[in-house]
Amino acid sequence: MTSFPFEIAAVDGSARTGVLKTARGEIRTPAFMPVGTAATVKALYTDQVRAAGADIILGNTYHLMLRPGAERVKTLGGLHRFMGWDGPILTDSGGFQVWSLSSLREMSEEGVAFKSHLDGSRHMLTPERSIEIQADLLGADISMQLDECTNFPCTRDEAASSMQLSVRWGARSKAAFGERSGQNLFAIVQGSVYEDLRRESAQALIAEGYDGYAIGGLAVGEGFETMCQVLDVTTPHLPSERPRYLMGVGKPIDLVESVARGVDMFDCVMPTRSGRHGQAWSDYGPFNLKNARFAEDTAPLNPDLDCPASRDYSRAYIHHLVRAGEYLAAMLLSWHNVAYYEDLMARMRIAITEGRFDAFRKDFNDRWASGAAPDGN
Amino acid sequence: MTSFPFEIAAVDGSARTGVLKTARGEIRTPAFMPVGTAATVKALYTDQVRAAGADIILGNTYHLMLRPGAERVKTLGGLHRFMGWDGPILTDSGGFQVWSLSSLREMSEEGVAFKSHLDGSRHMLTPERSIEIQADLLGADISMQLDECTNFPCTRDEAASSMQLSVRWGARSKAAFGERSGQNLFAIVQGSVYEDLRRESAQALIAEGYDGYAIGGLAVGEGFETMCQVLDVTTPHLPSERPRYLMGVGKPIDLVESVARGVDMFDCVMPTRSGRHGQAWSDYGPFNLKNARFAEDTAPLNPDLDCPASRDYSRAYIHHLVRAGEYLAAMLLSWHNVAYYEDLMARMRIAITEGRFDAFRKDFNDRWASGAAPDGN
Repeated sequence: MTSFPFEIAAVDGSARTGVLKTARGEIRTPAFMPVGTAATVKALYTDQVRAAGADIILGNTYHLMLRPGAERVKTLGGLHRFMGWDGPILTDSGGFQVWSLSSLREMSEEGVAFKSHLDGSRHMLTPERSIEIQADLLGADISMQLDECTNFPCTRDEAASSMQLSVRWGARSKAAFGERSGQNLFAIVQGSVYEDLRRESAQALIAEGYDGYAIGGLAVGEGFETMCQVLDVTTPHLPSERPRYLMGVGKPIDLVESVARGVDMFDCVMPTRSGRHGQAWSDYGPFNLKNARFAEDTAPLNPDLDCPASRDYSRAYIHHLVRAGEYLAAMLLSWHNVAYYEDLMARMRIAITEGRFDAFRKDFNDRWASGAAPDGN
Repeated sequence: MTSFPFEIAAVDGSARTGVLKTARGEIRTPAFMPVGTAATVKALYTDQVRAAGADIILGNTYHLMLRPGAERVKTLGGLHRFMGWDGPILTDSGGFQVWSLSSLREMSEEGVAFKSHLDGSRHMLTPERSIEIQADLLGADISMQLDECTNFPCTRDEAASSMQLSVRWGARSKAAFGERSGQNLFAIVQGSVYEDLRRESAQALIAEGYDGYAIGGLAVGEGFETMCQVLDVTTPHLPSERPRYLMGVGKPIDLVESVARGVDMFDCVMPTRSGRHGQAWSDYGPFNLKNARFAEDTAPLNPDLDCPASRDYSRAYIHHLVRAGEYLAAMLLSWHNVAYYEDLMARMRIAITEGRFDAFRKDFNDRWASGAAPDGN
């Protein structure tokens, strides 16, 4: 396997910044990937996603295989062309959504059989089929191995056997992936909250050799402290020369603390989902524009951001749009939130480059703890 | 009253093209005004509305007086600043929405008392209050007199007494409006389907003298033929040197046939409402992107339109977005539809200027009757 170049430009403590070079362009790390579940980053145009600073987006195997169908996406020229995004795309394997959305799951060594949450139709996802969908049909730049999402909480024995299944599925995913030019495959470290299982998972996957290593099984209700503890005992076992991707995380404070622990890539629905529920993110936490205190607040969401949604509309106007249930409320808040997340990543990259990430992290934690939003903006 | 300049550049049969000059910019006529009910043209950014070719948009007195409140809009700098639209805005008087949306209406010579459809709160709309809201608080460039929306169908006696009330309310609206620099007031011709009442209404309003004359009481279920008949007996009684505005109309064929009868301005929720329901408009009628025949149609909605939504996305992709219930479906289809409507107006303006409106009208009617959409695009 010829891994894509990952050039680490600066290291500051455990935090690193660099560039992942893909056939469809460079990804500046630490990177946040907006989620385009159904071939659209919800309520955003792709040029807004790009201008907000995103180098790569995420697509969902589970959703796309059910609708419009992976073969249909292939017929229509692949996911990039279908949705009009010419930058890199990472696709998840479908495992997490089968676990969280579908009904009547039947797990076996072979894979997972499930019923669609859309129409009840029956489907089978195996490591081989997941790779076919991601790499062959959707045309992902980065594919993820199929893994089993371990329940949380779970016993050590449950975590061990689930993790070992994921390791075996990883090997099958890798065999199915084979040798590809310009496409990449990431493994997923599991093991729940058990330090030795996380280490065992990492070592087994590294022995196989992947282009990057994801940390799965977090952001499932374990809480901030536990997430940090798991990262503390996991990232040290991952090769420093390969990208590390923390799946499904998270709030801005989670991103800062994960970068401090050596994570390079993130994805999360939070900026767009929050945006559809009236929330705007800031260094001081989220604030809900539906709140009456914004009814005559003429300040923008955040004048420091180079994003029209953050800069050019008053909170009073957005408050009105939220109250009225207008599309534009979700459009503006999702856009602002993606721009805020991407700006936060950019600020971290600069802080690491300049060797002052510790100070940045401390300042950020102070702002976050103060909860002073939105006046603190 | 100092009317704003209306420079008619060309006349072709009863159709005319020209420019209305307002303090906030020129309005090319015949003009279509996208509807910004709650201070947003639904699912569009104002720069998209402008780039689609709209010179003026419409705002709704009824909605804005209830939420966020007209006084609050004034506090926040007026409607233009509130919603970020620096071009001209025409506001309706609120009469039509009271008639169609509110409950417990009580009509009197003084005005109309009603309960809000949002929270049941009680309000009173008089000609004077409507003008205060439109001209003073929202800051409309063109205000409409308060009128009574006559039921359809109705007897001649009902139509006559309703029309006469609207004439009296017009005079009170005009008195309340007074002399203003850079703002304008339109009267509304009523009279239902009765030729003599339409003429009587027009003559009474012209005797008062307004900046423009609207034709109300249509697009209420009377049907295409009746609408055309009413226009045939109404527009000849309106002064040729003042703009004529057909309220709430309509489908593309309605616009073409109304322009042929001397109408200069239109507003309608159709392009944006259709867009939220999966429909795209064309010279051949509407087509619904939800239909399975678009599932693998790689053509754009209409490559001839200079609008990204019409040109840069496949029907297959929009079909998928509609099926998935994605925001982007409504965003793209509303944008396309507004661009299509504005392009239709532009084509009519050019045809009138070049003295070939009859041929344009005939061709358009042929296309419309063929119903060949979407392949005919």
